[in-house]
Amino acid sequence: MKYVIIGGVAGGASTAARLRRMDEKAEIVIFEKGKYISYANCGLPYYIGDVIKDRNKLFVQTASSFSKRFNIDVRVSTEVTRINVPFKTVTARNCQTGEVYEEDFDKLVLAPGAEPVRPPLPGIELEGIFTLRNVTDTDYIKEYITEHKTQRAVVIGAGFIGLEMAENLHHLGVDIHIVEMGPQILAPLDAPVAALVQQHIRTKGVNLHLNSVVTGFGKSEAGALNVLLKDGESIGCDLVILSIGVRPDTRLAAPAGLQLGITGGILVDEYLHTSEPDIYAVGDAIEFTNPITGKPAITYLAGPANKQGRICANNMVLGDIQKYEGSINTAIVKVFDMTVGAAGVPAKHLEKDGIKHIVSTTHSGSHAGYYPGAQQMSIQITFSPDTGQLLGAQVAGYEGVDKRLDVMSSVIKNKGTLFDLCNFEHAYAPPFSSAKDPVNIAGFVAENILQGRLKVIQGKDLRNVEEECFLLDVRTRAEYESGCIPNAVNIPVDELRDRLKEIPVEKKVILYCQIGLRGYLAQRILVQHDFTNVLNLSGGYYLWKICDDEIHCEHTAVC
Amino acid sequence: MKYVIIGGVAGGASTAARLRRMDEKAEIVIFEKGKYISYANCGLPYYIGDVIKDRNKLFVQTASSFSKRFNIDVRVSTEVTRINVPFKTVTARNCQTGEVYEEDFDKLVLAPGAEPVRPPLPGIELEGIFTLRNVTDTDYIKEYITEHKTQRAVVIGAGFIGLEMAENLHHLGVDIHIVEMGPQILAPLDAPVAALVQQHIRTKGVNLHLNSVVTGFGKSEAGALNVLLKDGESIGCDLVILSIGVRPDTRLAAPAGLQLGITGGILVDEYLHTSEPDIYAVGDAIEFTNPITGKPAITYLAGPANKQGRICANNMVLGDIQKYEGSINTAIVKVFDMTVGAAGVPAKHLEKDGIKHIVSTTHSGSHAGYYPGAQQMSIQITFSPDTGQLLGAQVAGYEGVDKRLDVMSSVIKNKGTLFDLCNFEHAYAPPFSSAKDPVNIAGFVAENILQGRLKVIQGKDLRNVEEECFLLDVRTRAEYESGCIPNAVNIPVDELRDRLKEIPVEKKVILYCQIGLRGYLAQRILVQHDFTNVLNLSGGYYLWKICDDEIHCEHTAVC
Repeated sequence: MKYVIIGGVAGGASTAARLRRMDEKAEIVIFEKGKYISYANCGLPYYIGDVIKDRNKLFVQTASSFSKRFNIDVRVSTEVTRINVPFKTVTARNCQTGEVYEEDFDKLVLAPGAEPVRPPLPGIELEGIFTLRNVTDTDYIKEYITEHKTQRAVVIGAGFIGLEMAENLHHLGVDIHIVEMGPQILAPLDAPVAALVQQHIRTKGVNLHLNSVVTGFGKSEAGALNVLLKDGESIGCDLVILSIGVRPDTRLAAPAGLQLGITGGILVDEYLHTSEPDIYAVGDAIEFTNPITGKPAITYLAGPANKQGRICANNMVLGDIQKYEGSINTAIVKVFDMTVGAAGVPAKHLEKDGIKHIVSTTHSGSHAGYYPGAQQMSIQITFSPDTGQLLGAQVAGYEGVDKRLDVMSSVIKNKGTLFDLCNFEHAYAPPFSSAKDPVNIAGFVAENILQGRLKVIQGKDLRNVEEECFLLDVRTRAEYESGCIPNAVNIPVDELRDRLKEIPVEKKVILYCQIGLRGYLAQRILVQHDFTNVLNLSGGYYLWKICDDEIHCEHTAVC
Repeated sequence: MKYVIIGGVAGGASTAARLRRMDEKAEIVIFEKGKYISYANCGLPYYIGDVIKDRNKLFVQTASSFSKRFNIDVRVSTEVTRINVPFKTVTARNCQTGEVYEEDFDKLVLAPGAEPVRPPLPGIELEGIFTLRNVTDTDYIKEYITEHKTQRAVVIGAGFIGLEMAENLHHLGVDIHIVEMGPQILAPLDAPVAALVQQHIRTKGVNLHLNSVVTGFGKSEAGALNVLLKDGESIGCDLVILSIGVRPDTRLAAPAGLQLGITGGILVDEYLHTSEPDIYAVGDAIEFTNPITGKPAITYLAGPANKQGRICANNMVLGDIQKYEGSINTAIVKVFDMTVGAAGVPAKHLEKDGIKHIVSTTHSGSHAGYYPGAQQMSIQITFSPDTGQLLGAQVAGYEGVDKRLDVMSSVIKNKGTLFDLCNFEHAYAPPFSSAKDPVNIAGFVAENILQGRLKVIQGKDLRNVEEECFLLDVRTRAEYESGCIPNAVNIPVDELRDRLKEIPVEKKVILYCQIGLRGYLAQRILVQHDFTNVLNLSGGYYLWKICDDEIHCEHTAVC
């Protein structure tokens, strides 16, 4: 059996290694158009930022070591230019010698990855404007920064890579502007969770421009770059990183007649076949069905690519024995001192797809408050009001964010419910958590909502109802006096039982505390004393204030 | 409705707070024989070690704040001396005034906790010998250490609390001996995982005595304590911490005629009733069914106690609506720089209970190796050879141990399988993990074992078979030369395909590498080249060496 694999990074390299373990006697050829295989894609921003100091560390395997260990014919700097489906061959071109030849296959695997979007804006070809996708890009950027002693950079696009690049350039002492077309950073997050991180980025002296559209690039007489914005502003800089997004590389698949999906990715079935039975595809280029929404989706993540490679090899050798269940898009990013991530589907996408859901936000300490170093984290979950199924989770904070997100991801993946969050038995000792883990707290609150014991209102819905309702702040007097939601009346929760008469029983009562717990206690007191319409602000004053600050920030240009 | 709760710490306080939220109008009385309620039990060793500097931090709530917020009648320093079941009353005694009175109840909750074992050894009443269970014990120990300028301490019992006390005393500059009756520390772990931690403890200059039985205590003329051991040795010290274990406090339940289980705990049904329908019990004192083994069990952990309190309150107010599903004993401990923990059932208990299982040990980096600070962790899992159900997990290492254990715990709790470990979608970016998480790796290896692609042998079984087999070390020459298993022959994996003739095809081949991966590759090569009986050493040379060192350590007294 002869296997040919196009693409030698995450998905392609995983497929090849697994193939060899499954079939010692197969012939396996990898074509990689770049100079390197199996390198650390996700490490590239950190190498540019000098966090990773040794360039050699980026290479998990070299073509030679990979070839030696797995007895695989690795052909780097060799671009496949055509798939000849009826003949079961590919046409390859050695980029160094120019030699063009055909290679036949029994089974072919496409792992071409995705390519960065580079919009046709005026001036985009100017020197100093880069995208980052592979080691060669990385070398160019690093060399450019050193040679030009870069002091000012503009990162366009506030996605995962954009933020990692901003952090790493900042680490090098470069002054940073981030320009994002959308109203928030990190599109897979809901706005309130993004707001938490936006505030943090601003504290680092990074200039964050949201709702800002780049219209082109210019060069000053002194040789500096200018990023031109739609509102007429322009930002001078020495370096531009374009991280607007990526799209599946279908430059081989499309002309070969392989079916593409509606997202533009290579359509695969659950066994990772393309529309041609002997051609499989894995990684960033494929379109599969999102297991939660049931809609077509692409995911640009290393974890799923690696897992697909393993499944693809199993299926090629053993004959379609293993289904790929689709990715729930679990992703995480370190943003300066913070960590933020998501799994499953955010509220805004559920809304768009017409999927019924409830949103709940909780804030908890990363570990026991009495043990040194505990820091607050925020968890926003979405769940089904009918079954309690956990549909999505977003976590932002400092210590232990990745842990809670991983647990949530495991539950979402298994189509588990908020009751699984309640029953979750975490490993508890004071350095690691509290007796009730943040995951449990998120579950308990959601359970209270689902079972009607707690009614919540989201901050974004608060603005419309303030007029007709009684807005009650149940924090202490000192907390209230240091800042509150406009028009709120203060009755601390510990005085509430004695001061019920101060609250108009005929009105809708919206109450809040700092994070949500005392608000819940207050709500329980009120509803058991004939107040019929009581809502607790989800995420409390803490989240409301951050979102409110962000709104004002946007209205006053960069802050 | 009038609820009386005996015990005001984890389980009792949780029950009370939840009760109030569920029923604003109920009468709720808590009796606590100690001076404090709702304090941070798990923080006590860290307060002694000055890691927690402010004593006030130990108190989550005071009797007064709790009473105010929840409108609960909190009676501290009041011991319940009898439950009068037929009359639905308890007899209470105010420890300060001596007043004795009866209090009636509609529903009673027992949350008495567990009491430390204090064996009747000669000299055990000598000054300077302490157990640690509550704030009062803590105050005594801290005062004693300060007054006596303690320089040498013996901790008896190497369980969770014993190790935390050893670490904290060490942190104060005290010279430490740990004396443990059993052959390993931390009884809930299997021996190889415990060995990893034992080695670490020894590197800290702590004297670890395993298989050492204490026969009594003496006092020297100079006033120093002597801990006498069965082997005739004695250890001089200023302070002894007894952390031999705890047992359920049934001093009220037993005379009241409540049924006890075979483990000695208060027997409860799945709704947390005792044998009397209006009396419930929660926390360390109860016996429930272990959800994995189906055997009666007690668990001495704060997390389950808190969750039981919540369930108990729900059931009392709403009428037995929620089942307690039992605890899988997820526990963790920081031991100096290391972290180690377990969830589910260790191999030794599965063996004892006659439950079929396979053991697999893997070692992985805590995050991507190319990103600074990655550290190796070891994961040992047990799973069913029939269904792949994950039965237990143990993790030892430095960074990110708690995260992997939490994910495993979530899978075990949901009766998930090793396939869930394979499919687990972790939140990956270089600071947090690798493209394949340690949890994935544990799953992949287990899947290979379950599906017959990988056959493993455990280190403990290696000693018996060495004679009849061909022992093959597939590491590099340099690794081999720096230490190997006696009688092993070295053929590096990358040379294996060319040197197959050096391996006797008729013999059983046992092979190993450093951690297990190259051994697996080598095994795949051999079995596809007519070698029919090939075993790979689970956990590799790394684990074998640590266990071997520990064996020699034990044979040469303290090291």
